[in-house]
Amino acid sequence: MTPAPAPAPDVVRSAYAQLVVTDLAKARWFWADMLGFHVQYEAPGIICLRGSDELTHHSVVLREGEAAALDHIAYRVRTPADLDRAERFFHRLDRPVRRVPRGEGTPGVGDAVRVVDPLGFPVEFFHDIDRAERLIQRYDLRRGAEVARLDHFNICTPDIPAAYAHYRSLGFGCSETIEGDEHELYAAWMYRKQTVHDVAFTGGAGPRLHHLGLATHESHHVLRCADLFGSLRKEHHIERGPGRHGVSNAFYLYLRDPDGHRVEIYTSDYYTGDPGHETYRWNVHDDRRRDFWGNAVIESWYREAAPVLDLDGEPQPVTDALLDESSVRVGADGLG
Amino acid sequence: MTPAPAPAPDVVRSAYAQLVVTDLAKARWFWADMLGFHVQYEAPGIICLRGSDELTHHSVVLREGEAAALDHIAYRVRTPADLDRAERFFHRLDRPVRRVPRGEGTPGVGDAVRVVDPLGFPVEFFHDIDRAERLIQRYDLRRGAEVARLDHFNICTPDIPAAYAHYRSLGFGCSETIEGDEHELYAAWMYRKQTVHDVAFTGGAGPRLHHLGLATHESHHVLRCADLFGSLRKEHHIERGPGRHGVSNAFYLYLRDPDGHRVEIYTSDYYTGDPGHETYRWNVHDDRRRDFWGNAVIESWYREAAPVLDLDGEPQPVTDALLDESSVRVGADGLG
Amino acid sequence: MTPAPAPAPDVVRSAYAQLVVTDLAKARWFWADMLGFHVQYEAPGIICLRGSDELTHHSVVLREGEAAALDHIAYRVRTPADLDRAERFFHRLDRPVRRVPRGEGTPGVGDAVRVVDPLGFPVEFFHDIDRAERLIQRYDLRRGAEVARLDHFNICTPDIPAAYAHYRSLGFGCSETIEGDEHELYAAWMYRKQTVHDVAFTGGAGPRLHHLGLATHESHHVLRCADLFGSLRKEHHIERGPGRHGVSNAFYLYLRDPDGHRVEIYTSDYYTGDPGHETYRWNVHDDRRRDFWGNAVIESWYREAAPVLDLDGEPQPVTDALLDESSVRVGADGLG
Amino acid sequence: MTPAPAPAPDVVRSAYAQLVVTDLAKARWFWADMLGFHVQYEAPGIICLRGSDELTHHSVVLREGEAAALDHIAYRVRTPADLDRAERFFHRLDRPVRRVPRGEGTPGVGDAVRVVDPLGFPVEFFHDIDRAERLIQRYDLRRGAEVARLDHFNICTPDIPAAYAHYRSLGFGCSETIEGDEHELYAAWMYRKQTVHDVAFTGGAGPRLHHLGLATHESHHVLRCADLFGSLRKEHHIERGPGRHGVSNAFYLYLRDPDGHRVEIYTSDYYTGDPGHETYRWNVHDDRRRDFWGNAVIESWYREAAPVLDLDGEPQPVTDALLDESSVRVGADGLG
Repeated sequence: MTPAPAPAPDVVRSAYAQLVVTDLAKARWFWADMLGFHVQYEAPGIICLRGSDELTHHSVVLREGEAAALDHIAYRVRTPADLDRAERFFHRLDRPVRRVPRGEGTPGVGDAVRVVDPLGFPVEFFHDIDRAERLIQRYDLRRGAEVARLDHFNICTPDIPAAYAHYRSLGFGCSETIEGDEHELYAAWMYRKQTVHDVAFTGGAGPRLHHLGLATHESHHVLRCADLFGSLRKEHHIERGPGRHGVSNAFYLYLRDPDGHRVEIYTSDYYTGDPGHETYRWNVHDDRRRDFWGNAVIESWYREAAPVLDLDGEPQPVTDALLDESSVRVGADGLG
Repeated sequence: MTPAPAPAPDVVRSAYAQLVVTDLAKARWFWADMLGFHVQYEAPGIICLRGSDELTHHSVVLREGEAAALDHIAYRVRTPADLDRAERFFHRLDRPVRRVPRGEGTPGVGDAVRVVDPLGFPVEFFHDIDRAERLIQRYDLRRGAEVARLDHFNICTPDIPAAYAHYRSLGFGCSETIEGDEHELYAAWMYRKQTVHDVAFTGGAGPRLHHLGLATHESHHVLRCADLFGSLRKEHHIERGPGRHGVSNAFYLYLRDPDGHRVEIYTSDYYTGDPGHETYRWNVHDDRRRDFWGNAVIESWYREAAPVLDLDGEPQPVTDALLDESSVRVGADGLG
Repeated sequence: MTPAPAPAPDVVRSAYAQLVVTDLAKARWFWADMLGFHVQYEAPGIICLRGSDELTHHSVVLREGEAAALDHIAYRVRTPADLDRAERFFHRLDRPVRRVPRGEGTPGVGDAVRVVDPLGFPVEFFHDIDRAERLIQRYDLRRGAEVARLDHFNICTPDIPAAYAHYRSLGFGCSETIEGDEHELYAAWMYRKQTVHDVAFTGGAGPRLHHLGLATHESHHVLRCADLFGSLRKEHHIERGPGRHGVSNAFYLYLRDPDGHRVEIYTSDYYTGDPGHETYRWNVHDDRRRDFWGNAVIESWYREAAPVLDLDGEPQPVTDALLDESSVRVGADGLG
Repeated sequence: MTPAPAPAPDVVRSAYAQLVVTDLAKARWFWADMLGFHVQYEAPGIICLRGSDELTHHSVVLREGEAAALDHIAYRVRTPADLDRAERFFHRLDRPVRRVPRGEGTPGVGDAVRVVDPLGFPVEFFHDIDRAERLIQRYDLRRGAEVARLDHFNICTPDIPAAYAHYRSLGFGCSETIEGDEHELYAAWMYRKQTVHDVAFTGGAGPRLHHLGLATHESHHVLRCADLFGSLRKEHHIERGPGRHGVSNAFYLYLRDPDGHRVEIYTSDYYTGDPGHETYRWNVHDDRRRDFWGNAVIESWYREAAPVLDLDGEPQPVTDALLDESSVRVGADGLG
C-alpha cells in the first residue's frame, strides 16, 4: 500500500448478497416460504428476493450452481461517479477489478464494478437498481419471519486488523469491537448506514461468508420464525438462539439454509449516525459479548462458513486465522 | 319462578355460537382468512370453524340464511346426564325446550337440548362433540388474528339484574360488574371456566347478541389483525380499539363481520378458579371501566347488536333497556 | 395399597411453595427485584410473595435456614372438609400426616394438613388463606419479569409411573407425557386447574424439587427478565433458554436463585378444562419435546435439583432414578 | 428571496427540544417517571433528559417559566463550520440570528446559532454536545415507556408548501405527504437521518409546536405506557391512540404532559437512506392516512398546539392556516 490511496467510493449501505445454492426449489422454500422474502424476479436458475420494507429490486439473489458458495456481496454507492472511484480504488490496491454493464450482471442492477477485495472477497459496487413496488404496508403478504430488509454481511477473515483497516479506508465507521486484554482485535462491526453495521468480521479461516443479517421489526417475529421450523419438524435449520447479542444489543436467531448458508434474523439495534460516534469495546473475556444472557455459542457457529468465489466463479483459497476467539475460554462460552 | 328450581346442569364453558350469515363466501373470508379460524367442516350452506387451541369440532358455526342473526349459543355440560338436568331446569322455568338428537342439529355435536332461556336467548346444552386434530403447534397453519379459542358470549339484555340472577341459578360465578352509585347493575361478567367470563351482559334492547369474544395469545396478534384489515382497505370492519379494557384487563379489538356480527379479539385476562373468588365492582362513572386508557366508546358499539332466533328460526321480539349505561356521561365516554 | 383408598380431597390448584434459603436479603433481590414478586408479608427470617394477578396472601414463601431446600409445596382444596379428606387419604396410605392450625404454620394460611406423600415430598393442603389487595391493574408496581402467578411445581422422582398413579388417585388429569417406544413413562404433566399442569415429574434422583413454574403474560416479559440479568452482569443466574417447550407449547426461561433453586418463567399454554381432555404423548426420541426448536438441554438442568424436608425439617433421603431421560440421545439433546 | 441562497448547513438530525413548563416537579413526573427519560442534568429551573439509546447530553430540556411554550428546537450539524453556514444561510433570508457561545445557552451544548426561521420557529444549530454514559444495555434503569431517543419534531404551520420549500432548501428529503386531489399539500414528512422524518408539518395556525416524537423499540412498550397512565388514574394524559399510522407505518400513542405539551410515543418506521428515495403520497381522502385502521382523529389533536418563543423569549404571533385537513370529511375522520 505504498502509493497514495485513491479516493474511496461513497458507499451507502450493504445492498445485496448473491448466493450459489445447489437446489433452487429447496432454497425457495427456505428463503421465501419460511423467512418471508418476497420473490421479485424468477427465471431458470435464479431468484431475486427482497424484504417487505425494501424499495429496490432485491437484497438476496439465489443462483443455482454445483456447489454452495458466496458469489458476491454488493454495496450500493451514492452516485454513478462512485463506480469510477471504486474502479480506481481497487486498481490502486492492485486487486482484480471488472466492469459489469447493466444486463450482463445480476438482474435489476445497472452498471456495476466487481472486485476481489484485499481480504479475498468478491464485492460489487453499483448505483442503479430497479425500483420495486412498495409493500411496506402489505401485511396481507407477510409470512414467516417477515423479513423487512437486509441488515448486514458477516464475513470470516483470518486477519481482523487488516479487515478493519481496509473498511476504514472505504470510509466505514466502527460501532463495536471485541478485543483482548492488550487490545488485540478479535472482531469488529462497521457501518455506513446509521445502524450498528453493514459488515462485521468474525475471526476464522477466510475468506468465507459467515452469515447474512436480516432485519425484522420486533422480537416476536424472531420467535415466530423459530416456531415455524419446529412446526414442520425442520428444527435442525435452527443453529443458535434466539438470544440477545451483547454486541449491538440486537435480538437474534441463527438459521442454516438447505445448503448450510447461515442467516441471522436480527432486530432492534441502535442509531449510529452522529458525527464522532464512539466505538464501544467489549473484552473477549466478557461472556455477554456474544450472548448477553451468557448462553454458550454453538461450536458450528464458530467453525462453519461458506466458501467465496472469485470473479470467474472459482472458489477462493482459504487461509487460517491468526487469532481464534473460540479458543478463549470465557464463562459458558469458548470451545478451546 | 315460585316452584323450587330444578338442579342446574353442570356447565363447563361457553362452547360455540351458531350465526346466520347472508353470504357464506364473504363470511368465510372474514372468519377464516382474516381471523385465522380453521375450517373443520364445510357443506353447502354451513361452515364449522375452530381456533388453533381448540380440540373439539368447532366454536363458531356459520349458517347461510336470509337475514343475519344469532341462531343459538351453546354451552358444553360435564356429563350426558346434565342434558336431562338442563331439560328439567328450563321446563321448570316454563321455557321452550327441545331435544335435538345427534345428526339432527349442528354437525359434529351429539345429543343436545335447546331452549329459549328466560332472557329470550336460544341456548343449546350438549356434552358430546367430535374431537378434532390437535393444531396447537401448527404455527405453519396460523393466519390473521391467530384465534386460539372462543372465550365468551356478550349478550344485550334490557334487565341486567334478571340476567345476573338467571346465570347465578345456572351456577355461574361473577368476576366483575359495572354499577351505579346505588349499586344498580349496568353490566356483569360471569364465568364457569376459570377465566373472567363465559358470558357477559351489556345493558340495551334485547335479546340481541352483542359480540363473540375470541381469545388470541399475545397483544401483537391483536395489532396484526387490525393491520391486515388496513392492508386490504377493509378498515371499516374495525369498529373500536385496540384498547385495554378496565373490566377484565384484557387487550381488545372489536370488528364487524360482513353481516355486522361483532367480534372481539381478546387477550390476557386472569384466573378466577379459586373458591370464593370475589367480584370486582366498577363504578359506572369510572371512565376506565370500558377502556382503561379513557378512550371513548364508539356509539355503534352501544347501539348495534344482532337479532336472535327462537327454536323455530323466527326472530325474537326485542324489549328496550331499563338502564342505559351509554346515557351516563363519564369522562370521554358516554353518549347521552 | 391393599385397603380401599379413601376419597381424595378436592384439589383446586397448586397454591404455593415454601423454600428454605440461606440468605434472605439475597433471595429478596432475586425474587422481588428481579422476578417482580410483590412482598406481601415480611418478618425476621421469612418473606411471603405473590404475583400481580394473585388475590391470595402468597404463592412463594422464603424462609431463612441453614441449607437450601424445599420446605413444602401446598395445594389449595375446595372446602374446609377437604382437609379431613386429605388427612384420611394419607393416613390410609400410611404416610406421615400432621394438622397445622392457623397461626402455627405459614403466615396468612388457615388450618392446614401437612403430609409426606408416597413420593417422599412434603405437601400441605389448606383451604383458608388471607385475601390480598388486587394489584392486577397496578402496572406502576410491576417490575422485572412481572410474574403474574405461580403456575406449577416440577418435581424430581425416580419412579414416574408411581408418581403418575399417585396424582391420578388425587384426581389430577394428565395433559402430556414423554414416553419411550414401549410407552415407558419418562415424564408427565398433570393438572387440576384448567392449564397444562399444576405438577410435573422429571425423572431423576428424588424426592427433589426441580423447579417452580411462574406465569407471566407475554413472551416479551420473559425476554425482559433475561435482559435484566445481563444488565447487572448476573447472567450466571440464567441456566437455560429462552425457548419454546414442545410439551405445553409454553415459552420459557430457567433461572437459578442465589441458593440454586430453579425457577421457570413460563407463558402461554392452553386450556385443559373440558371433560375427557386427551393426553398428548411425546416420544422421547422427538428432539422437540423439551425444546420445540431442537436446542439441547443444559446438563445441569437434568442433574441438579433441591433437597426436600420432612415434617420435622430434616432432609429426606434421595433414591436414584429407574429410567433416565438424559441418557436417551436424541438429536442435539441427551447427555448420555 | 431574490438573492442566491447561501449554502445550507449540513444537518445531521433533529437533536433536542427545549420546552417551557410551568411546574418542573410535575413535568419531571411525566417525562422521567412515566416516559422513562433519564435525567442527565438537573439544576434549579432546568432538567436535561435523554433516552436509553442516546449517547449525547440530552434530547429534551425542560425549563421552568411562566407560560408553557416551545423555547426552541435544535438540529445537530456535521461540523463546527456548519454553524457559520447556518448563520449566513439565515442572514441571507433576513431572519433573526444569534450566536450563543458554549456556557451561555443550554447546558451540555457547545457553540450554537439560534435563529427564527422563515416559518417563525425558534431553531438552534449546534455541533458540539457533551457525551453521556452509554445506557443502551442498562435494562435495569428502564422505566415507563422506555423512550429510546427523540425521533422527530412535528410543527403546525399555516403554509405547508412554504414549510416544505424551506426544509428542502436545508437539504431535507421528503418521505411522505398528504395531498388533495390537485396535489395541494396538506402535510409533509421530511428527514435528514435515515428514518421517515426529523420534522413534519401539520396544517394549522402557526408557528406552534404540535408534538415531539419519541422512539421506543417495540409496540408493547407503547401499550405499557398507556397502561401506566391508566394504573394511576392519569388516563386523561392519553389523547389519541394507540394506533398504526398510515403515514410512516409507525405504531403510535399521543400523550399530553401536565402543561399540555403533546408527545408521541412512536415505534417501527422504515429506512430512507438510499439516494433517490421516493416520496410516498397519500390522498387526503384516504381515511387510513392518519390511522391505518380508520379510527377517527380526536378533535383536540387537530386544534391544539403549543406557542413558540422568539429569540428574546417572547411568544411569536400566530397566523391561521390556508388549508385545513380537519375540514376534509373522510370516512370516520375529519371534523368539518
